[in-house]
Amino acid sequence: MHCTRISLSLRHSRNATVYMYRIVNLPVKIELVKLHKREHKSEPFLRVNKFGQVPALCVERQKGQVKFVLSESSAILKYLSEKYPSIVSESKMYSDDLREKAKIWSALDWYQTTIRSSAAGVSWHAFVAGNMGGKVSLELAKHYEERLKMSLDVLETLRLGDTFPFLNEREHPSIADLLVIEDIVNLVVLKGSPFREELSSLDQLLAERPRVRKWRDAVMRINKPLWDEIHGVLEMVAENASKKIDSESRRRRFDDVASMSRL
Amino acid sequence: MHCTRISLSLRHSRNATVYMYRIVNLPVKIELVKLHKREHKSEPFLRVNKFGQVPALCVERQKGQVKFVLSESSAILKYLSEKYPSIVSESKMYSDDLREKAKIWSALDWYQTTIRSSAAGVSWHAFVAGNMGGKVSLELAKHYEERLKMSLDVLETLRLGDTFPFLNEREHPSIADLLVIEDIVNLVVLKGSPFREELSSLDQLLAERPRVRKWRDAVMRINKPLWDEIHGVLEMVAENASKKIDSESRRRRFDDVASMSRL
Repeated sequence: MHCTRISLSLRHSRNATVYMYRIVNLPVKIELVKLHKREHKSEPFLRVNKFGQVPALCVERQKGQVKFVLSESSAILKYLSEKYPSIVSESKMYSDDLREKAKIWSALDWYQTTIRSSAAGVSWHAFVAGNMGGKVSLELAKHYEERLKMSLDVLETLRLGDTFPFLNEREHPSIADLLVIEDIVNLVVLKGSPFREELSSLDQLLAERPRVRKWRDAVMRINKPLWDEIHGVLEMVAENASKKIDSESRRRRFDDVASMSRL
Repeated sequence: MHCTRISLSLRHSRNATVYMYRIVNLPVKIELVKLHKREHKSEPFLRVNKFGQVPALCVERQKGQVKFVLSESSAILKYLSEKYPSIVSESKMYSDDLREKAKIWSALDWYQTTIRSSAAGVSWHAFVAGNMGGKVSLELAKHYEERLKMSLDVLETLRLGDTFPFLNEREHPSIADLLVIEDIVNLVVLKGSPFREELSSLDQLLAERPRVRKWRDAVMRINKPLWDEIHGVLEMVAENASKKIDSESRRRRFDDVASMSRL
């Protein structure tokens, strides 16, 4: 480790990576990137990471010269787990054994084209697109919801066992658990969707899937105060969007009643 | 290496993994799984790999007892690259250096939610669903085609450089190149889609993207006879589906003319 010569800084918005660094206490400096201000597409950020993706891990020399940049949450989690084996193996979130490691890689790879792409699809088309200047679409949200339900069923029936609550039937969560769970708990934003009546809520999705629920609770419990601190913002965004819809629909009902009374 | 005690067998249908083993000449026995006969969902296959996914890598004791199973192309490629470092590093398709490795992981992770999920989406909804007893959908094929075009644009402008043709500006292809290219060349099946007039063909998608074309040609050239041998089947399937559509549309035209002449 040559941490005296380099400083690691993480420019993030995804929770899993931050959560991991803070649980494991890695020597990483976290810098927040404001997506709603499009900081990830700004000139200074693109100079560091031309892909404009968050999170990005940057290894800098002390004079601010960037020596190495890495994007993709999954690659960053793997890289840091291998860079700091002694710190991470104490947490049991990774392994030195190649077969154990490969099982973690496999769970991460499986997640990308199943849970991640379907959950991102439904969140985007049901809620996020509207906040980013685009259009929400019930038809596409429904399409991705169908895919998501299938992915959650595979998680429930094949990926999570009965003996231990974590992925790959591990007794302790791995970096795969930390990443996969993010896309699921992020579905709380569906509360704020204009289609919230037509789509399943996060609670409804979990109600029918007891192993997924048990697994989510177990991952949350690892470091509960930190979990709440990091995930509180999203909950708040969803709650505010939901209240806005409630008050709009109350106003519409009031207008309807008012115009009825004038008839 | 303890290959005298275990035999590695790969049950595959994906080309990238097979292509890699044969180029690099890994001590792996390849077994073909017939997807159209649903062999991947059959009892004997599920006993080995409960996920019913191909490819699957199985490490067996000599008496046929399975000791270790791994699914997901990307995880299998990483696992074998680390299991046989001396063989693979000679081919330069992987690296011993953690930063180099992490860049390859990052390219693979990026691909999963971009090229892979969009190319699989357009192929499925434009062609494959119809062959698997489901329904094709022009609307969904178009949706995924839009996503695919964006992913290909990122590949063209940000992921491929000018100096060297391969991903991460490498002089030699890595396992990432081998996997990412598969999903692109597989788009040849669009020839056989009932919507082939409404969607861009593989040739059209590549026509506007010279770096992607140059990269595809460079990967194909690594071992041209082997490439043709492995990819010939897909080309044939697409060609046959395309001919079927041609002959159906000729028959329809003939029927139209015949019924016109009877008027």
